[in-house]
Amino acid sequence: MAQVDHSRMANAIRALAMDAVEKAKSGHPGLPMGAADVATVLWTQFLKFDAADPHWPDRDRFILSAGHGSMLLYALLYLTGNEEVTLDQIKNFRQLDSKTPGHPENCITSSVETTTGPLGQGVASSVGTALAERLLQAEFGDIVDHFTYVLCSDGDLMEGVSHEAIALAGHLKLSKLIFLYDDNGISIDGPLSLTDNVDQVARFQAHGWNSFRIDGHDHKAIADAIRKAQASDRPTMIACKTTIGFGAPHKAGTSKAHGEPLGAEELAGAKKALGWDYGPFEIPDDVLGAWRNVGKQGASARTDWLTRFDALPADKRDDFKRRVIDRKRPTAIADAIRTLKDKLVSEPQTIATRKASELALEALTPVVPELLLGSADLTPSNNTRVKQAKDVTPDDFSGRYIHYGIREMGMAAAMNGLAMHGGFAPAGGTFLCFTDYARPSMRVAALSHVPVVYIMTHDSIGLGEDGPTHQPVEHLAALRAIPNMRVFRPADAVETAECWQLALENTNGPTVLALSRQNLAQVRTATSEANLSATGGYELIPAPGKAQVSIFATGSEVEIAVAAQKLLEVQGVAARVVSVPSLDLLLAQDDATRAAIIGDAPVKVAVEAAVRFGWDAVIGPDGGFVGMTGFGASAPAKDLYKHFGITAEAVADAAKRRLAA
Amino acid sequence: MAQVDHSRMANAIRALAMDAVEKAKSGHPGLPMGAADVATVLWTQFLKFDAADPHWPDRDRFILSAGHGSMLLYALLYLTGNEEVTLDQIKNFRQLDSKTPGHPENCITSSVETTTGPLGQGVASSVGTALAERLLQAEFGDIVDHFTYVLCSDGDLMEGVSHEAIALAGHLKLSKLIFLYDDNGISIDGPLSLTDNVDQVARFQAHGWNSFRIDGHDHKAIADAIRKAQASDRPTMIACKTTIGFGAPHKAGTSKAHGEPLGAEELAGAKKALGWDYGPFEIPDDVLGAWRNVGKQGASARTDWLTRFDALPADKRDDFKRRVIDRKRPTAIADAIRTLKDKLVSEPQTIATRKASELALEALTPVVPELLLGSADLTPSNNTRVKQAKDVTPDDFSGRYIHYGIREMGMAAAMNGLAMHGGFAPAGGTFLCFTDYARPSMRVAALSHVPVVYIMTHDSIGLGEDGPTHQPVEHLAALRAIPNMRVFRPADAVETAECWQLALENTNGPTVLALSRQNLAQVRTATSEANLSATGGYELIPAPGKAQVSIFATGSEVEIAVAAQKLLEVQGVAARVVSVPSLDLLLAQDDATRAAIIGDAPVKVAVEAAVRFGWDAVIGPDGGFVGMTGFGASAPAKDLYKHFGITAEAVADAAKRRLAA
Repeated sequence: MAQVDHSRMANAIRALAMDAVEKAKSGHPGLPMGAADVATVLWTQFLKFDAADPHWPDRDRFILSAGHGSMLLYALLYLTGNEEVTLDQIKNFRQLDSKTPGHPENCITSSVETTTGPLGQGVASSVGTALAERLLQAEFGDIVDHFTYVLCSDGDLMEGVSHEAIALAGHLKLSKLIFLYDDNGISIDGPLSLTDNVDQVARFQAHGWNSFRIDGHDHKAIADAIRKAQASDRPTMIACKTTIGFGAPHKAGTSKAHGEPLGAEELAGAKKALGWDYGPFEIPDDVLGAWRNVGKQGASARTDWLTRFDALPADKRDDFKRRVIDRKRPTAIADAIRTLKDKLVSEPQTIATRKASELALEALTPVVPELLLGSADLTPSNNTRVKQAKDVTPDDFSGRYIHYGIREMGMAAAMNGLAMHGGFAPAGGTFLCFTDYARPSMRVAALSHVPVVYIMTHDSIGLGEDGPTHQPVEHLAALRAIPNMRVFRPADAVETAECWQLALENTNGPTVLALSRQNLAQVRTATSEANLSATGGYELIPAPGKAQVSIFATGSEVEIAVAAQKLLEVQGVAARVVSVPSLDLLLAQDDATRAAIIGDAPVKVAVEAAVRFGWDAVIGPDGGFVGMTGFGASAPAKDLYKHFGITAEAVADAAKRRLAA
Repeated sequence: MAQVDHSRMANAIRALAMDAVEKAKSGHPGLPMGAADVATVLWTQFLKFDAADPHWPDRDRFILSAGHGSMLLYALLYLTGNEEVTLDQIKNFRQLDSKTPGHPENCITSSVETTTGPLGQGVASSVGTALAERLLQAEFGDIVDHFTYVLCSDGDLMEGVSHEAIALAGHLKLSKLIFLYDDNGISIDGPLSLTDNVDQVARFQAHGWNSFRIDGHDHKAIADAIRKAQASDRPTMIACKTTIGFGAPHKAGTSKAHGEPLGAEELAGAKKALGWDYGPFEIPDDVLGAWRNVGKQGASARTDWLTRFDALPADKRDDFKRRVIDRKRPTAIADAIRTLKDKLVSEPQTIATRKASELALEALTPVVPELLLGSADLTPSNNTRVKQAKDVTPDDFSGRYIHYGIREMGMAAAMNGLAMHGGFAPAGGTFLCFTDYARPSMRVAALSHVPVVYIMTHDSIGLGEDGPTHQPVEHLAALRAIPNMRVFRPADAVETAECWQLALENTNGPTVLALSRQNLAQVRTATSEANLSATGGYELIPAPGKAQVSIFATGSEVEIAVAAQKLLEVQGVAARVVSVPSLDLLLAQDDATRAAIIGDAPVKVAVEAAVRFGWDAVIGPDGGFVGMTGFGASAPAKDLYKHFGITAEAVADAAKRRLAA
């Protein structure tokens, strides 16, 4: 087959993007049209992939951080022969149940590397992707050897998280991470000059990157630039000057091309200007053939890789297969946790649950080689660093501990990239209050079913003197409200061990562990084979006789509930205590299970050092709640509990008032 | 009185910080000790302030972004004679009800400019502070003419929001904004080199700033640098190389000095090394006297200012007094809204509530001169720009519209600074989903009682094709959970007008307006003098006879509730509809008011295109809920409502099932 001109191949992307957006009456034609040349050079000349197996572990990753330009990605997938994104799917762009949603979602379209759309997320998660490559290569050798390419936009680079991401990548010298910045100078409000005058090339250089400018429509310049980037010992950002909506006669170079259909007339004008004389969704045979060949270019590399993979020592191969390909967790987790629980029952510990988490991690590290710990510069406070975990440094990727820096969202996004790449179970720490900083990336994890663990310590006013800026009161509620986000707040060392098991065994989404700064008595003193936390709640202490009162509590307030139960017993009131390590998991149980745990005592009282919001689902609008009604304060923890009335007496009083009513 | 040596004055800060942290057994001595020289030069030689009136409107602002170093600020306030922060308060550092909480809070300590502690917040809000100065000067002339100084740390500059902040400040050429970066090279995990190698000076230069390095312990260099910064036509960042915990014999220059008491021995060693031979909290007379004189240095400037202020034309003076000093909103708001409501009742509008918000803004702009609109690059989508509002540009600060760029947290933080400075009612827009990005600054607003308005459009799956990355489902719950955050989701143009009134009249905290992308029928068709939204909920449609069912709905689902009510009536079921523009405000009513609105119909059903979380407080665990149980999807809005079963039929069915049970 004759060579097909670069421009015609790029125009195929432009035409599909225009046609799909036009048919959907919705979408973003501007980016695919502007970035088509950059993408065409990358995919035809550099990207290592095999359309026949989009999940080949050693493929180069292509991350479209500017997710609104999703038609660029869908066009590339269709043109190169991906079996999931067919022409019918392109025609069904942005419709219900299509494989071509408005923004790319890796759970909808398995050939998509990562969910993007919220700006900055692709840029930031790509740091994790590139880091995963380095870590796996250090562990498994050159069976892992690929680039991570990111196509990003002005918006990605204006978002704050881009700073955290590129600072971390620059620090770690992730030389195989390459950003192609679609420098089109246009945002929704108009020309970028309305809002921004950052010199992005100088900015990236200040962050330790290799960076330079090119004409993003000059295919030779693009190819030269990518070659230069591949050879660099630092990550590279190539600022590709492009025209948004390239080819559109009146809208090119303006914000009009960004986020709406071009309209029939402008679309026709664009096709004419591009010399593309074909109907909607029509790709001429020579162009389609050339693209399909591109989709096969990596086939031999993949075959070769499979041979090399088979030649690995059996233990290495099995480990790689389990972690990277099958993405299963070791079966030894349950045993390790049961052993720890038995030890705790025989030698009870009055320790903070952050410390209990460290104990669990010490037990888990030897049996979970993919466990990758880290903290956003709160290592000594989060108790995330176990003795066995060596630091990852720019010169040594054989470690298992990441100093993420003071970059909560950057950490959470990198964790997404690490997990989505495959091979790692990232678990990163900060204070629970600062989940606010990480929230956009945590949401992507929940939406994309990314299994990561957030080790969130200092989980209430119990942190004391640092005061209300650091004391979460609404964060448990805000996290519980996120679909597919599991939130645990264990009461003691035994529950903490159980919650760690559930967190690591949950491969369907992210898990928050909310942990105390302050020491807590061990309330679980009896041996238990079963993981009692698995239903979200369970009866910790039965009532002496028929229960008149059920007391629900989480985390550090369980010991208060236990004390209240005793107070009530002395006063002749039969109360039971239900420990609720996970309110969301409890509410997710089937009706019968949930009802059995909640019980039918006429009075229900909950105690949690946080706002009531969400608890009515258990206790009802008439239930008693002892907790916070506003922000905390700066004082020693004991003073605060007293000041805010979160005490056993208050719980007992709330119960008695309702019994008397 | 003899001149007191700079070092002795700086050592007074160091000693107070060490002593207070030691007594509290908690806190951060390292920053105050390291930055004492920088702060001493700034306060003694440059800062325009008068301790006798810490609220003088034209004072220079000093923002301690590194809020953990709060003892630096408290020491300066005490030493200069501030009446609020006395020596007793210093001795009571971090204790309940003190004026010296762990991190500075402007609501606890009125002489504190802004609440800091969550890293990056001071840096980012300072952009609003400096912008307020420019805007007010353009409006009122040189009655407003001050600098904004920010003392910031590595952590502030690692946080992503710092990027958004400095890019915006650089773009706007806020030349009177001066950052003093405490470049001590230490973070909690250890030396900064563990996590970071950003060249901060080059970085700021790439963002359009003037920036250079100095020795942060050389008082002459510090003074020269500040003079240079004052003369610059761009914002300036001075990287001051310092030693954390300066003076501490063993802990200086290490992370050990950062966040814990030095301990008796190290403290004694430090005092010895500093030549500070005084007991705990003891400041020798000469030093205290010198500092007290510093506190009076600005007195004549303030007197002069008062004279100039009195000479302003009466209308200007009154306007300035109302907006900047008394911080009251115009009384004309209520009239403007009532007029708009009457017009809407006479000519009903089927429009999106984002469009209704634009109508309200058109009505409000002429009577609320402090209204400062803007958007994080979604101006045409958020409908935030009214015709009357001219753009603010780097060359013209007489406008009332800010293009914040794709910087949601940067916008929210700048709004905090604008509001806290005084003179403005900032209202900024983005998509509701991206409140996640802005959340840390929104929390500061709630905690600090900052009156700002968030115009959050595209508030549900009703946004359609952009899909789940852009569709909020948990955000209403997550925002309602924040104490002192008012969340409105109006049902139509009339409610939108009412909610705008309530938002602007709420000077005690921030307000979220959640607005639809899609058109909504006008459900409020009768004239109403009263603002019905003021109780959070109200009966929109009474039941035909004794109510068997109460249907609660918000925003775009109110019209679904209305249709369901009709369906039920046809089937002989008497239902009423309660519109709930603000669930949190409804729940905050006194028991009797709330009970009357909720009513005593045996069956309760709520409908909201979001998760149920929080609604049980109204409908109870047995109530019916029609809404979302997970994330949304990409498709036209109508298809999505059908797909997710958010329909009048589903609401009626939920009611009937419960009636039959």
